[in-house]
Amino acid sequence: MIVILSSGATKENLQHITRMLEERGYAVHVSEGVERTIVGAVGVPADPTQKAAVMEQFEALPYVDRVVPVSKPYKVVNKQFHPDPTVINVRGIKIGDPTSVVMMAGPCTVETEEQLMESARAVKAAGAHILRGGAYKPSTSPYSFHGHGEAALKMLAAAREELGMPIITEVMDVRDVELVCEYADILQIGTRNMANFNLLREVGKTQTPVMLKRGMAATIEEWLQAAEYIASQGNKNVMLCERGIRTFETYTRNTFDINAVAAVKELSHLPIIADPSHATGKASLVNAVSRAALAAGADGLIIEVHPNPEKALKDGAQSLLPEAFVKLMHDLAPIAGAVGRRL
Amino acid sequence: MIVILSSGATKENLQHITRMLEERGYAVHVSEGVERTIVGAVGVPADPTQKAAVMEQFEALPYVDRVVPVSKPYKVVNKQFHPDPTVINVRGIKIGDPTSVVMMAGPCTVETEEQLMESARAVKAAGAHILRGGAYKPSTSPYSFHGHGEAALKMLAAAREELGMPIITEVMDVRDVELVCEYADILQIGTRNMANFNLLREVGKTQTPVMLKRGMAATIEEWLQAAEYIASQGNKNVMLCERGIRTFETYTRNTFDINAVAAVKELSHLPIIADPSHATGKASLVNAVSRAALAAGADGLIIEVHPNPEKALKDGAQSLLPEAFVKLMHDLAPIAGAVGRRL
Amino acid sequence: MIVILSSGATKENLQHITRMLEERGYAVHVSEGVERTIVGAVGVPADPTQKAAVMEQFEALPYVDRVVPVSKPYKVVNKQFHPDPTVINVRGIKIGDPTSVVMMAGPCTVETEEQLMESARAVKAAGAHILRGGAYKPSTSPYSFHGHGEAALKMLAAAREELGMPIITEVMDVRDVELVCEYADILQIGTRNMANFNLLREVGKTQTPVMLKRGMAATIEEWLQAAEYIASQGNKNVMLCERGIRTFETYTRNTFDINAVAAVKELSHLPIIADPSHATGKASLVNAVSRAALAAGADGLIIEVHPNPEKALKDGAQSLLPEAFVKLMHDLAPIAGAVGRRL
Amino acid sequence: MIVILSSGATKENLQHITRMLEERGYAVHVSEGVERTIVGAVGVPADPTQKAAVMEQFEALPYVDRVVPVSKPYKVVNKQFHPDPTVINVRGIKIGDPTSVVMMAGPCTVETEEQLMESARAVKAAGAHILRGGAYKPSTSPYSFHGHGEAALKMLAAAREELGMPIITEVMDVRDVELVCEYADILQIGTRNMANFNLLREVGKTQTPVMLKRGMAATIEEWLQAAEYIASQGNKNVMLCERGIRTFETYTRNTFDINAVAAVKELSHLPIIADPSHATGKASLVNAVSRAALAAGADGLIIEVHPNPEKALKDGAQSLLPEAFVKLMHDLAPIAGAVGRRL
Repeated sequence: MIVILSSGATKENLQHITRMLEERGYAVHVSEGVERTIVGAVGVPADPTQKAAVMEQFEALPYVDRVVPVSKPYKVVNKQFHPDPTVINVRGIKIGDPTSVVMMAGPCTVETEEQLMESARAVKAAGAHILRGGAYKPSTSPYSFHGHGEAALKMLAAAREELGMPIITEVMDVRDVELVCEYADILQIGTRNMANFNLLREVGKTQTPVMLKRGMAATIEEWLQAAEYIASQGNKNVMLCERGIRTFETYTRNTFDINAVAAVKELSHLPIIADPSHATGKASLVNAVSRAALAAGADGLIIEVHPNPEKALKDGAQSLLPEAFVKLMHDLAPIAGAVGRRL
Repeated sequence: MIVILSSGATKENLQHITRMLEERGYAVHVSEGVERTIVGAVGVPADPTQKAAVMEQFEALPYVDRVVPVSKPYKVVNKQFHPDPTVINVRGIKIGDPTSVVMMAGPCTVETEEQLMESARAVKAAGAHILRGGAYKPSTSPYSFHGHGEAALKMLAAAREELGMPIITEVMDVRDVELVCEYADILQIGTRNMANFNLLREVGKTQTPVMLKRGMAATIEEWLQAAEYIASQGNKNVMLCERGIRTFETYTRNTFDINAVAAVKELSHLPIIADPSHATGKASLVNAVSRAALAAGADGLIIEVHPNPEKALKDGAQSLLPEAFVKLMHDLAPIAGAVGRRL
Repeated sequence: MIVILSSGATKENLQHITRMLEERGYAVHVSEGVERTIVGAVGVPADPTQKAAVMEQFEALPYVDRVVPVSKPYKVVNKQFHPDPTVINVRGIKIGDPTSVVMMAGPCTVETEEQLMESARAVKAAGAHILRGGAYKPSTSPYSFHGHGEAALKMLAAAREELGMPIITEVMDVRDVELVCEYADILQIGTRNMANFNLLREVGKTQTPVMLKRGMAATIEEWLQAAEYIASQGNKNVMLCERGIRTFETYTRNTFDINAVAAVKELSHLPIIADPSHATGKASLVNAVSRAALAAGADGLIIEVHPNPEKALKDGAQSLLPEAFVKLMHDLAPIAGAVGRRL
Repeated sequence: MIVILSSGATKENLQHITRMLEERGYAVHVSEGVERTIVGAVGVPADPTQKAAVMEQFEALPYVDRVVPVSKPYKVVNKQFHPDPTVINVRGIKIGDPTSVVMMAGPCTVETEEQLMESARAVKAAGAHILRGGAYKPSTSPYSFHGHGEAALKMLAAAREELGMPIITEVMDVRDVELVCEYADILQIGTRNMANFNLLREVGKTQTPVMLKRGMAATIEEWLQAAEYIASQGNKNVMLCERGIRTFETYTRNTFDINAVAAVKELSHLPIIADPSHATGKASLVNAVSRAALAAGADGLIIEVHPNPEKALKDGAQSLLPEAFVKLMHDLAPIAGAVGRRL
């Protein structure tokens, strides 16, 4: 931690700060400049649970201009301490493996058995590895459809049985974690729950792989700290999912942060999946953004596919028709090859 | 709902859309322009749970340019259907009353009995009406302090006992709603949980007043829909809290959206509280932004006060010292008077 | 400047950085921690024009994690070096005076002599001090009206003659600065030109007071640096204007950054004016946001008033009718009083 | 244009609006719903320069809820009226050709003859087609280096002479357009000048190709309208450049909007170039984001390359070393191939 004093800070102020830092267990280095004094605090606080609090305490002092953190606020998911990429094995499918790419696809929401099976067979035939489908759905309006719950989980399990595809589905509520774990191969944490810390802790106590979507206004650092919540509980099978952030642009539903795909690769060892369906909100843009994500180094994609988007109970505008998904798979193969991976 | 067709849409496309709308229960009006055709859909869908889905279904059609909603997606909290302001009575203190302003103050987090009582006595003496204090704290880092839980709730209740001040405290977890309701006079839903829809539903089933903070990337419309979640379950004692939104500006922790204070007053009948502590993140800016919020029409303020910010376990940088809170109350009185209210 | 090295940096890397800093004229302080080394560079570079470049040069080194600036990148407009507020005298009207507030009002655009005079007489009668009106208008569409140019300047001058009100009008083009200076009492730099550095330099060479609007995506620091461009050329008669920033919220045209009004007061000695018309884009919100701006400490307001908004050639939706402006003045008087100023 | 009336609008209000629309030359269609009335205005206004103004006039009416535009506010650059892609020929290099990709590279700023020639030879040898280099530089600080002006233009021309590479350089000032046109093969309009409408008009009067960077807070629609400014003056040799937008994320300098690359391709026939150097601000991320941009369909890239970034006068942190540029070209070739283009 570096404490930059205000220009008017006195010798007494400096002594007070030095004493506060030493009391909290830091070694102190002082650089006195012409205009300002900089105090470097080296080491870790005696009580590590207070690291963030300590920074705020110093910012509270009237003669402190700013406090600058030095080390990253995450450890378990930090590439620095674990340079090799994490590879998560889901019923034989490797996620995060540098020589392959994983494709997850299926409908936004499980509506009916036929709709699910029609979607599932279509994406399987086109080459998808993992089936997606929502049993519990967060909806902005209280009056919208919220998913079929356990009935949908059973349909997903039946689809897995028939097609041999692992399934990924969202868990929204701490009370549902146990139940969803009975069915799901991968738990999805949605964008609205990225900072639902108790939910993160609960999924962190299981050993089921987790796909953690980025909060729509979360910085990359906050997102990695959310992953740290899960991993620090013992569940290291975490993959990240970039699904677009909220910006001023309104033509698209969100802004896909392609920089973040590359940034995560330099900061963390966790796999990163891209979700072009939510990141664009427009079926017409999904193909191009999917190609971009793979080219930038994403370890996989998650794509909404619906046999009949004009009757979809959710996300119709961004769902691909099965034939568009076939074309997508066809277009992605050479991109995967260009970055040394196979689809 | 208005469906704007793409410029290349054909007569068949128009017939198809008309049929789809009629099947879903709408009356249809068509305006054919030189370049484009506009389809107005009047009425409500046969299945009202599908209102949002239907819009997305039309956007999925390749010959539709855009779908524009006409009515607001919230009813119970909409001023149009309930023009009189909601006034919430909390142990005799009126929130939302046009002739008075409510002041909530106290420490971010309940740390110890002494810290809480020292803060509580100070804010009470300065004229605050309601005591705030966190028992459960959302922290970005898994390694930070997360609050003392029920022990803190008990301390809050003891402070209420001694000082006769109602208490407001955050509930973060659906499993804690019942317990927190035993102690709290007002439940706070934090910014990270604004779209935790199951939590909204659970607090909606109680009759304890709720203060719903705006999500840091939530539009005003999404925030009102979140309030609708609570109110539509039966709990109409909902107040909104503007606590700053996330923008590109980094000098302040968030950007206080003063426009939103005024906008909420024209869109909804619910009371609106302002939180300048989180909205600025800097104690030095709290006084000015508090004055602004009252001047714009806020029904109250919630302010972090700590007897010793440089030892605070959370939010030290934005907490006022008791003497700064006294000055704040002094500065706010004439502003309240200027808008026809008393503090 | 503080250089934070990456965790893998070697002794040789540290020597190289130390040498680079010394070559550029800095004194160097090194703090070696367990995980990381921090290098404090004290002093100013031998070539001060390269201050920003030097920071980027260090960030280019692969073993540097981050470079943190210590001092503020503006001097002339920095409150630290000039604690007293700047008061600008415009034909006897004081802008920035802590005991008064200045009201600028008038139509967005000068359309006709009657429209201008009708607006001008109305705002004068209601108590406005300065007349606003656009002669040159930036329009997002190339096909929209762009202002009457010099003819409009002449009409503004005639209004000043008749009513004894100073006039403020926008200059958009370096080639027009001389001409606009012949007519205007205050030059307005619009939000789109905040970073048009050559225009800033040209107005900096005049002695006409300048109102510098914040760029819609400019940080407070960038805005103050833009003011520094003008002031460093010799024209210290600069006032800032907060007119809303661009965020994800779409209910309002922009988000008025009320925090910035207070922040500017702690960072700079320049006067700050608020523009609630552009900051909201909705006439119905102008009154509340104007009250808030004065309460937060703004030195004045600039308000769009049009005798007939439904025929306005620009900004009809956000223009007040003369009677709404009268009400505004009436509502602002007690707010001004509450902060120790008179309207 | 669609006018959505407020729920309380009366029959008289509707008549008034209908008359206003008809006076302005529109045909009117009314759809009366249970809750609200929708008025469709078909056709173009009698005075087309007032199209935007008219929408604002209706929004000014108290009984109007919202006004929704129907047609796109740009014509010449709209794909709907010109489905074939524009291909710009610059000394034999085709920009926008669906079978090839153009690479522009060179230093941010022309510093010295040696620095320029060393960069130019390196990028030429690696396969770049066009040389970039700044003669006039926008700098946030008034005290930073602003470019060598005409002397730098002459050095660029000498490099073109020696290496046979066309040159692209920025023009910032309306007064410099003629001079820069004497040297440059492509004029660059920087992000800060995207809405400098007079500059757009001036370059629109030349026939020199223009690369228009997106404003850092400009929507895609505003960016296309800026292109329309240039094209509507007669210069149709316009290419767009996505260089990242400003968001809340601070790890990268900007957020590269990969969605926008695909969106521009569906909205306009103009070529689109990507600038990963500014979009990331970090040399380590340039390779991945460049790959993504080509995969998404960008027609070319513009990359900052400097022989010695740790001595660069600007943008050191984001400049590639020549060897990193060689690797980039190597990595891009298979991506270009995967989308049916050659590098």
